[in-house]
Amino acid sequence: NTCSTNMRLKLPITCFILEIILIILFGTLVQYDHETDAKQWHNQSHEDYENDFYFRYPSFQDVHVMIFIGFGFLMTFLQRYGFSSVGFNFLIAAFALQWATLMQGFFHGLHGGKIHIGVESMINADFCTGSVLISFGAVLGKTSPVQLLVMAMFEVTLFAVNEFILLSILGTRDAGGSMTIHTFGAYFGLMVTRVLYRPNLDKSKHRNCSVYHSDLFAMIGTIYLWMFWPSFNSAITAHGDDQHRTAMNTYYSLAACTLSTYGMSALTAHDGKLDMVHIQNAALAGGVAVGTAGEMMLTPFGSMIVGFLAGVISVLGFKYLSPILEDKLKIQDTCGVHNLHGMPGVLGAIVGAVTAALASTDVYGGGLSDVFPDVASGDVTATKQGGIQAASLAVTLGIALLGGLIVGFILKLPIFGAPPDTICFEDSIYWEVSCEIIILYILYFFQSDLQVKC
Amino acid sequence: NTCSTNMRLKLPITCFILEIILIILFGTLVQYDHETDAKQWHNQSHEDYENDFYFRYPSFQDVHVMIFIGFGFLMTFLQRYGFSSVGFNFLIAAFALQWATLMQGFFHGLHGGKIHIGVESMINADFCTGSVLISFGAVLGKTSPVQLLVMAMFEVTLFAVNEFILLSILGTRDAGGSMTIHTFGAYFGLMVTRVLYRPNLDKSKHRNCSVYHSDLFAMIGTIYLWMFWPSFNSAITAHGDDQHRTAMNTYYSLAACTLSTYGMSALTAHDGKLDMVHIQNAALAGGVAVGTAGEMMLTPFGSMIVGFLAGVISVLGFKYLSPILEDKLKIQDTCGVHNLHGMPGVLGAIVGAVTAALASTDVYGGGLSDVFPDVASGDVTATKQGGIQAASLAVTLGIALLGGLIVGFILKLPIFGAPPDTICFEDSIYWEVSCEIIILYILYFFQSDLQVKC
Amino acid sequence: NTCSTNMRLKLPITCFILEIILIILFGTLVQYDHETDAKQWHNQSHEDYENDFYFRYPSFQDVHVMIFIGFGFLMTFLQRYGFSSVGFNFLIAAFALQWATLMQGFFHGLHGGKIHIGVESMINADFCTGSVLISFGAVLGKTSPVQLLVMAMFEVTLFAVNEFILLSILGTRDAGGSMTIHTFGAYFGLMVTRVLYRPNLDKSKHRNCSVYHSDLFAMIGTIYLWMFWPSFNSAITAHGDDQHRTAMNTYYSLAACTLSTYGMSALTAHDGKLDMVHIQNAALAGGVAVGTAGEMMLTPFGSMIVGFLAGVISVLGFKYLSPILEDKLKIQDTCGVHNLHGMPGVLGAIVGAVTAALASTDVYGGGLSDVFPDVASGDVTATKQGGIQAASLAVTLGIALLGGLIVGFILKLPIFGAPPDTICFEDSIYWEVSCEIIILYILYFFQSDLQVKC
Repeated sequence: NTCSTNMRLKLPITCFILEIILIILFGTLVQYDHETDAKQWHNQSHEDYENDFYFRYPSFQDVHVMIFIGFGFLMTFLQRYGFSSVGFNFLIAAFALQWATLMQGFFHGLHGGKIHIGVESMINADFCTGSVLISFGAVLGKTSPVQLLVMAMFEVTLFAVNEFILLSILGTRDAGGSMTIHTFGAYFGLMVTRVLYRPNLDKSKHRNCSVYHSDLFAMIGTIYLWMFWPSFNSAITAHGDDQHRTAMNTYYSLAACTLSTYGMSALTAHDGKLDMVHIQNAALAGGVAVGTAGEMMLTPFGSMIVGFLAGVISVLGFKYLSPILEDKLKIQDTCGVHNLHGMPGVLGAIVGAVTAALASTDVYGGGLSDVFPDVASGDVTATKQGGIQAASLAVTLGIALLGGLIVGFILKLPIFGAPPDTICFEDSIYWEVSCEIIILYILYFFQSDLQVKC
Repeated sequence: NTCSTNMRLKLPITCFILEIILIILFGTLVQYDHETDAKQWHNQSHEDYENDFYFRYPSFQDVHVMIFIGFGFLMTFLQRYGFSSVGFNFLIAAFALQWATLMQGFFHGLHGGKIHIGVESMINADFCTGSVLISFGAVLGKTSPVQLLVMAMFEVTLFAVNEFILLSILGTRDAGGSMTIHTFGAYFGLMVTRVLYRPNLDKSKHRNCSVYHSDLFAMIGTIYLWMFWPSFNSAITAHGDDQHRTAMNTYYSLAACTLSTYGMSALTAHDGKLDMVHIQNAALAGGVAVGTAGEMMLTPFGSMIVGFLAGVISVLGFKYLSPILEDKLKIQDTCGVHNLHGMPGVLGAIVGAVTAALASTDVYGGGLSDVFPDVASGDVTATKQGGIQAASLAVTLGIALLGGLIVGFILKLPIFGAPPDTICFEDSIYWEVSCEIIILYILYFFQSDLQVKC
Repeated sequence: NTCSTNMRLKLPITCFILEIILIILFGTLVQYDHETDAKQWHNQSHEDYENDFYFRYPSFQDVHVMIFIGFGFLMTFLQRYGFSSVGFNFLIAAFALQWATLMQGFFHGLHGGKIHIGVESMINADFCTGSVLISFGAVLGKTSPVQLLVMAMFEVTLFAVNEFILLSILGTRDAGGSMTIHTFGAYFGLMVTRVLYRPNLDKSKHRNCSVYHSDLFAMIGTIYLWMFWPSFNSAITAHGDDQHRTAMNTYYSLAACTLSTYGMSALTAHDGKLDMVHIQNAALAGGVAVGTAGEMMLTPFGSMIVGFLAGVISVLGFKYLSPILEDKLKIQDTCGVHNLHGMPGVLGAIVGAVTAALASTDVYGGGLSDVFPDVASGDVTATKQGGIQAASLAVTLGIALLGGLIVGFILKLPIFGAPPDTICFEDSIYWEVSCEIIILYILYFFQSDLQVKC
């Protein structure tokens, strides 16, 4: 029965407890940084335009759109799960960005026991949230909002740990998050969905597909992610040439990726027809794949090669690998995050390692200290930096898979109100749905008859 | 009969006369300011990046998206009123921003008999337009485009009067417009809809609800409003730390508000199911409620408390207060603007008054003159400033209610072509609607029969 | 039969060959400019905020949204062509922006045999892409993706030639592209669609119209184009007052245009009902019509007059001229680009010529060298500049019409897989369409019967 999915008490209790904890911790630990605090900013001598707000806020807003519109609408492709796709995306993102502020602030350095925040921490919080939403894509349609909030709580924490190990301990460079965001989010989510394997999910199979208008809604998500990915990858790189170059590399990588995606989609269809799933997802892989190397002197030429390969890999993944993962490894990956974030994230990590290993003062000049501070300072060689980058991929995969395993088992607890196998991918379990949905039901009943007649 | 709703002459005459008056007044009164005028800008010595364009234009564009996409699509939730929601929103906003330029320019200080305009006046014009669109939400589905243009003309004028009294005479601080925009727009609109009370509106009741895809379109509006609210509240605050801090306070207020909204929506439903109306609206109340105090040293902690409360109040309003307002006070508030803009606006005014009263040089340092110039200059004490803020709320409510009363009676004139009670919330009165709508009609006819069968 | 429309090999071959050529040419010819290259940027002494990224990237992103969301969704108005509208828009834009980088870079000046790129070249590439998408609007529903890619290849090349003649040889001013983008794209596309004339297109007539929700999707495109047009026209004007002024002029032109569009739409309908086609398109003509003069001292007053006229002309074009063009001249202009881009583009060119002829140091002061460098340097008089502007319109029309003629005949080659006359405006030829479309088919079959009953 569906009684266990009743959210009347579970969801309010979860939301209120989490938010009250957040408020208390913010009250105790969080302060304005020197660019948002009225007194501190005015204590020092600088021009208004030197405030980091003007360097990063436009990029922040683009990232914000990717998180809430991009991810939210990308997942509306399911015919009966649009409310949940946008709505749960909204809920867990709103929670995760607050929790991420605390976790990232805690790991990235306290100032006298306090977390200092500004636009850069807001971008980082949104980045961490993005990772949670990638995992959400893997379990889409099969989880309750309470499960998702619990998953977000653990995932944000593990994300911050992994990010701390990479960026602060190892000195890894990963401005656009090929590893920290995409690889981590994808493999964490894949392991969670593996643990939550539903043998009878085919009973909800008829709802696990798109309809015409739901695919158009999903394209809103796709296009926004595609357009703003240059801002995503460049949002926290160094000021000046670095932000500029990163945005441009990403722009060309995505453009090349789009052409290879369309080509591969037609090529792998027996009748040459394009598949919306490929266009909606694989065309974005070029952004993921230059997440690490985008800030480096990858050149537009290099970016386009990477983007081109990412599109090819991603479509092949959707076409041939996803069915294998589901049948053999019992990984039910609703949105195919392995193809959009997993493999392209790994590709991005490798590209970043190779590009880092080739870095030299000849190419970067005085800008080397922005992109590879440890190489510029002589602490490590470029080759060593490349090795660090590669090792970081292994660390990320390890933490993601192990974390996903543990969190998956936690989410199996029956108290969280997961839907039964027969009513997955269905909004009406958790949402008031207007009467019109009844019409659609009727049409489904009629459909078989009518098809015969026509 | 519907002849009176024929817009063949009424709408063109109104549009052309209004636009010609606008053009003449712009030709007579409006000039480029010193940052948009080629000669004046080049007469002075400054760097290009000091032009206010670079400080405010990204925020302006975010506000612009809120006005045209945010408000426009938020109101598409009605099943048969999508064209009018987006389309009339578009029309009255395009008119109101021109008229607001004149009215605000007139009140906010002429330069040798001329109104000087630039990006800040564009933001202010969009803000004033937002107030009109809030009132539009209250009367949505029950008014003709001519009525709406007439309402906009009067409301913009009264908005400018109220804004002048608050900002220029009283010295009130209200950068994000909790009072000037939200409280004013909501109570003005509520009074207009009260005067336009339709006793037989239940004859259009079957159209006054959403369908599945219309709720998804509305979520586009919601999410854009939510994402860009930090830009809205910070768009005209002082450069530097002020814009930065305001955006961040709003970001956290909205995040907290979202969690309390989801919690309250599930809690107040007998079966624990989330209500799209709450998510689409109440989750935004956190932005309204820090409209005044957002630029102050409210701290993220304070912002989150305010946002949390705003979400709770707003859902409770939708659930329990709106039915009472309709039944007892005869206020037919289509979009529930009282819950999204009215009560949260009042809350925002109170929060602003308290925060102002607590201001001190200890906390604000040299930044006090940016946020509270009158306190910094010693003209008033912080306590007095708090009192002024509170008094401003009363002034705003008074002007909004009295203005709405008068304008409501003007709008009752039969010449404006309002729809009859039986055909409210219906696009086909004012729009060519394609044949496909016939299919939906048919489905409605069939529905009752078919439901029995299934 | 539809075998020739099978894209299994045609599309992959086209995409892969084009992308591999692009990658090779980028590898050979393209380099970072001095603001994106790490070494060059750090070799010189400047502040981070002087990097052009901070002056233009927010505008670039707005333009990017117009290209991919604006144009893409504007064309989703067709009931069965949403996938192709957004999807082919996406494909040809992703190709065109890469190809445009090369073509524009080649014509606009090589640096030691290399093309140097940065945010300004990205904006220019998007601009050129916009021109291709305008032509796409003329042939929408009647072309295969391979045809579109071939068209884009030729059109981008001719665009760059025309742009080179105007901006580099003649010294024309056209920052917002009334001529280079809109006039060129419209007349090129009109000539292509003339050559591709389909005498039996009425066999697909029942699909060449909108449905309720497709019109709402199209409004997303319209509103985004409308909101971000100020960024479009100001994206590559000079820093400082020029960008500021251009954005503001466009803002007021569009607002005035919206009122005249609504007025004219109601006036020209026999029952006074607004037509979505007019609102979706004509309301944007004000942006096109100030594309040339927007950066000049046109004044808001002048901008509003231009916008007002553009709206009037555009609606009249849709109502009275388009049917004539189709019947008499055999120009099947699916989106009516002649009314949105053609005539308003010509108007914009004329307004630009007149405004240029009236330029003087009295009005522009030291800013004259930004807007009219040749006039400021004394190379030409203002009157002469006006003449150059007018001549540029003729050049643009000539190249567009001649180019469209030739490219149209190339596109007639049967190998490109164009759809037959009976199945135009139909997604299912080139896209996997989900089963639900069958329901719609059924409804169409039933419709005639059911209408009788009701």
